[in-house]
Amino acid sequence: MRAQVDDHHPDLLTVIEHLVSSGGKRVRPAVTLLTGEMLGADPDRLVILAASIEMLHTATLVHDDLIDGSLLRRGIPTVNAQWSPAATVLAGDYIFARAAELAAQTDSVAVMKSFAETLATIVNGEITQMFASRGVSSRDDYYQRIYAKTASMFVLATKSAALISQSDEVIVDRIRQFGYEIGMAFQIVDDILDFTGEQQEVGKPVASDLRSGLVTLPAIYYREDNPDDRDMEAVLRGEFSSDGRMKRLVKAIRRSGAIQRALEEARQYVDRGFEYLEQMPDGVERQALFELGSYIVDRQI
Amino acid sequence: MRAQVDDHHPDLLTVIEHLVSSGGKRVRPAVTLLTGEMLGADPDRLVILAASIEMLHTATLVHDDLIDGSLLRRGIPTVNAQWSPAATVLAGDYIFARAAELAAQTDSVAVMKSFAETLATIVNGEITQMFASRGVSSRDDYYQRIYAKTASMFVLATKSAALISQSDEVIVDRIRQFGYEIGMAFQIVDDILDFTGEQQEVGKPVASDLRSGLVTLPAIYYREDNPDDRDMEAVLRGEFSSDGRMKRLVKAIRRSGAIQRALEEARQYVDRGFEYLEQMPDGVERQALFELGSYIVDRQI
Repeated sequence: MRAQVDDHHPDLLTVIEHLVSSGGKRVRPAVTLLTGEMLGADPDRLVILAASIEMLHTATLVHDDLIDGSLLRRGIPTVNAQWSPAATVLAGDYIFARAAELAAQTDSVAVMKSFAETLATIVNGEITQMFASRGVSSRDDYYQRIYAKTASMFVLATKSAALISQSDEVIVDRIRQFGYEIGMAFQIVDDILDFTGEQQEVGKPVASDLRSGLVTLPAIYYREDNPDDRDMEAVLRGEFSSDGRMKRLVKAIRRSGAIQRALEEARQYVDRGFEYLEQMPDGVERQALFELGSYIVDRQI
Repeated sequence: MRAQVDDHHPDLLTVIEHLVSSGGKRVRPAVTLLTGEMLGADPDRLVILAASIEMLHTATLVHDDLIDGSLLRRGIPTVNAQWSPAATVLAGDYIFARAAELAAQTDSVAVMKSFAETLATIVNGEITQMFASRGVSSRDDYYQRIYAKTASMFVLATKSAALISQSDEVIVDRIRQFGYEIGMAFQIVDDILDFTGEQQEVGKPVASDLRSGLVTLPAIYYREDNPDDRDMEAVLRGEFSSDGRMKRLVKAIRRSGAIQRALEEARQYVDRGFEYLEQMPDGVERQALFELGSYIVDRQI
C-alpha cells in the first residue's frame, strides 16, 4: 500500500501514510491472503490483490467519514478532520485510483470486474441509505444495507482470491458464500459493539449509528419487542438534544434481549459460512479461517 | 452509458440521465471510436471502451464541479447545484465504478491498467493544483496541469483503442503521442475560449479560471508581456470585488497578442500530432481524425 504513492504529490504520501499507520484490524486482506494461500494462489499476485482490497476499503471510508462528518476513526483523526472537504474528496478518489491500479496488476480481468462491481454495490448502498427516510428500517432493508456496506467486500476478498488461484467454479462459488456469511456476521457484530463498546475502545461515541438516525439490528430487535418505547420513537425523530434520552435508550437496549438475539444471528451466519469452509482443502490456512470466523463473533472491539 | 444504471437506486438513474442528455462535444469517445476503427478493433469492445472513457471523464467532472462550486456546465445545472455535497460525492463515485466496470468489460488488462493510471494522474493533478499557491503559475506548471487534466485522457483514448486492436507497440506508441498532442491543444483552446467566448456560448462566466485564481496560457503570455499590469496582479491576489477591474483585464488580454500566441501554440501541438497520424493506416477514419484535430483549434465553443 505504501509503495502506491511513489511519484505523486507529497501531501498524498502523508495522507496515505496516516491511513496505513492508523492500523485497523485488516480483516479483509487477512481473509484474502488466507483464502488465496488455501487455494494455491501465486503469492505475489495474492499480496497485490490483498493490498488492492484494503485500499478500496480505505477509499470508501475516506468518503464515508467526509459524508458523515466523522472526526475520529480507529481512535485517530479522519482525513476530513484535517483536510478541507474538497481535498478529502480528491484524497478518496486518489486512493480509489491506486486500488484500481493494484487490482489491474493482478492481471485478472475477472478480478477487475468483481472489483468494479463491488465498488458500485457499496456506493449504491450508501446512496440508498442517504435517500432513505430517517429511522425507517425493516430487517430486509438492514440486510441489504450491510451486504452493500460490508459483506460485498468480503465476497470480493474470497472470490477474487479464488479466481487468481485458478480454482474451478464450484470452489469459487463456495468460498464466495463463505465470504458473504462471515461478512454479514462481521457487520452485525460491529453494529452490536456500537451499543456495547466503550468510546475509548471503539474509537467513536457509543450508539453513534442511532445518533445519526441509522437503525441497526439491535435497535430493530429492541423496537420489535418494545413497540411503545417513547425514547426510541423520539430518538428516531432526531429528538434527543438533552442526551439523557439517548443514554436511557442505550442502557435499555443493552439490558434487553436484543443484543443477545443479534449476536445469536451473527453466530448463525458464521456457522453457515463454516459449512462452506469445511468443503475447502484442509490445512493451516483453512484452520486460520475457522479461527478468524470465530474471532468475528467473539471479539470485543 | 445509459445501460449502466439498470438495477440501482432510481435517483442514480436520474442523475446519469441528466449528465448523458446534457450532451457535450463527446470528443473523447469520438477519438476512441475513430482510432479503434482505423486500427481494426472489434466494434463491440470499442463501443464499450468509448463509453467507459466518457463515463470516467463525466465522473471527474462531477467531483470537479463540486470542488469548484460550479453551478453550470454546458449551460445546464451541475449535479452539485441540485444535490447535497454528500450525494454529489457518491454520484461521482458511482460513475467511477460504472466506468471501471465498462473498462473491465473490454477484457483487456492493459486497458484496465491505463484506465487506473489515468485516474490517478487526473486526481494527482487536481490535488497539486489545489495545494499550489493562488496565482503563481509557470508555463511548466501549466503544461503539467493540462496534461493531467485533459491530455492524459486523450492518451488513454488513443492508447486503449490501439491496445484492443492488437496493434504492435510502435503503433500504440505513435497513436498515444497523437492523443497527447491533440489533448494538449484541446485544453489550450478551451483556456483561450474561457477568455474569448461569450457566457451563453461557453455555458459559464467569462474568464472563470482567472476569477478562481487559475492562470492559464493566455494569462501567462499576457503577464510575460505586461509584467507591470496592476489589474493582473490585483486579480491574482483575489482583489477584484468591483468586477470593473476583472472586465478591464479580460478586455486587455483579449486585445493583446497573448490569445494569438496561445492559439499558435495549440496549432503547433496539433501539427505535431498530425505527424504521428500520418504514419497510421490511410482511410476514412484517419481522415476524420485529421478533421477532428483541425476542429480542435478552429472551434468557437
